[in-house]
Amino acid sequence: MKALYYNGEKLSYVEDYSKPTRKENESLIKIELAGICNTDKEIMKGYRPDFKGILGHEFVGVVEDSKDKSLIGKRVVADINRGCGNCIYCTSNREKHCLTREVIGIDNHDGVFAEYLTWDTRLLHRIPDNLASEKALFTEPLAAAIEILDQVHIKPSTKVAVIGDGRLSFMISQVVALTGADLTIIGKHSDKLENFKAFAKTTTSTDDSYEIVIEATGSPSGFDTAKKITRKQGVIVVKSTYANNINIDLSYFVVNEITIKGSRCGPFKPALSLLEKGYVNFPNIKFFKLEEFEEAFKSKEFKIGFRIK
Amino acid sequence: MKALYYNGEKLSYVEDYSKPTRKENESLIKIELAGICNTDKEIMKGYRPDFKGILGHEFVGVVEDSKDKSLIGKRVVADINRGCGNCIYCTSNREKHCLTREVIGIDNHDGVFAEYLTWDTRLLHRIPDNLASEKALFTEPLAAAIEILDQVHIKPSTKVAVIGDGRLSFMISQVVALTGADLTIIGKHSDKLENFKAFAKTTTSTDDSYEIVIEATGSPSGFDTAKKITRKQGVIVVKSTYANNINIDLSYFVVNEITIKGSRCGPFKPALSLLEKGYVNFPNIKFFKLEEFEEAFKSKEFKIGFRIK
Repeated sequence: MKALYYNGEKLSYVEDYSKPTRKENESLIKIELAGICNTDKEIMKGYRPDFKGILGHEFVGVVEDSKDKSLIGKRVVADINRGCGNCIYCTSNREKHCLTREVIGIDNHDGVFAEYLTWDTRLLHRIPDNLASEKALFTEPLAAAIEILDQVHIKPSTKVAVIGDGRLSFMISQVVALTGADLTIIGKHSDKLENFKAFAKTTTSTDDSYEIVIEATGSPSGFDTAKKITRKQGVIVVKSTYANNINIDLSYFVVNEITIKGSRCGPFKPALSLLEKGYVNFPNIKFFKLEEFEEAFKSKEFKIGFRIK
Repeated sequence: MKALYYNGEKLSYVEDYSKPTRKENESLIKIELAGICNTDKEIMKGYRPDFKGILGHEFVGVVEDSKDKSLIGKRVVADINRGCGNCIYCTSNREKHCLTREVIGIDNHDGVFAEYLTWDTRLLHRIPDNLASEKALFTEPLAAAIEILDQVHIKPSTKVAVIGDGRLSFMISQVVALTGADLTIIGKHSDKLENFKAFAKTTTSTDDSYEIVIEATGSPSGFDTAKKITRKQGVIVVKSTYANNINIDLSYFVVNEITIKGSRCGPFKPALSLLEKGYVNFPNIKFFKLEEFEEAFKSKEFKIGFRIK
């Protein structure tokens, strides 16, 4: 089958990759659409030195074979972490934190920049019939934004800031806006901030203070800004991962009783629900063919994907 | 009056310090007992370069004069932070975080290593009649331990570790033990750990993992231990303040969705209640006279105080 294969050094387009065979508990999924995520780019820069295989973890596919016959022919998305099933994390609703987990296109399992994927049937989520595949492709990154609301109680009366004016911030901000909170987006680019004005206040200033601050810039300077603008007894939610260690005056956070909260993948069901109901809206995805991957990875559009079928 | 005065460089015993005069909203309190806290030692090492005045903030006193006549002759303890009354913190139940607050013996207000204190009547708490002053002197540090339970929900089924086998850890551990949680104290000194065995498991090993980890060592290596033993999606409560910045791999906390929570002063009412009911018990305090302060500050007893009346 066609696939984009990462050999640990670079990504290549291949046409003769072996089609995977499903195990008893797995479904065989024909990939329809796949999305490029920043993590894919990080892997190509060496973020996961042990990973070799097909890249990609955001997808919409159609079940072609499965023990669950009701799924055949149906469109699905899937949780990307598969745990061992036995450890403290797998048995306490934290499968995504299993120490020996496999992760589609990231850790020990081939990804979705390909014609087929096999994956546990229990990890699949059916896409509602009235939700277009091109929108459902946002499920995985949207779930990561929703994770914040599973971790922190953002009340309608809470004063919240999101730092960053890029794609990550855009998805997070739309989700936070739904709470009714007093929401401000802090960015450096007035033109990019324009996109947020339909649902939030925007500013380039860091002079005000907030109860909850969400760091979504991907840059350590974003954390410094978060420290500056978070109120005492407030919460900083860190969505960015940084390549290097950062130097922290931890005593400042103790004396001011500030909480720092790491946040990663999130729940798929509410993501599908918000997309289906139209409560969140994102720009159209720009699609390429797998063989156009070099052009795709260079594109500066809001969101890039592959149309595979 | 007699007092221990800190001039910004060293502490001295003086006998001719001016007795304070109460304002309309303040009470005049005759100090009966005062406790030495680690913060007092930190101030003498330069932790608060702007502070000059009488040191000390832990006390038990008797109200000698007040607009509230019902308080006269009664024993009291007091919240040590006095805010401006108007800012976002003072008007949202966070007076202790007021940016222009005064703090007894720490910030812009004379402390309690003296014969008298004046302080806002609204900040005083009456000591129950059946609670000895020698025990009530633990109210302020005990409140700081109780603060953890105001910040984090420690359930009876939660697996908790406290790192540290010193006085701070001892007070925190007694409070956490009351939740019924599965509590382990991690220390370096087998002899000190003996003191905890009445209410917790103890160990010198850092091989197990915990949902909530309370760092109470005062040393940056304690934070490294906390990082190692905290489960994914777990919480690290940092009670220690460190003199220097520390270097953090913040991405580790993002990817593993770990929460870091700073914790400081706490509520007095539940502290008085736990002391009165005898739910927490601490070793006897070793008391000195004010003029014996040099000997007092060198003592290695569990808790040191001054008997002033």
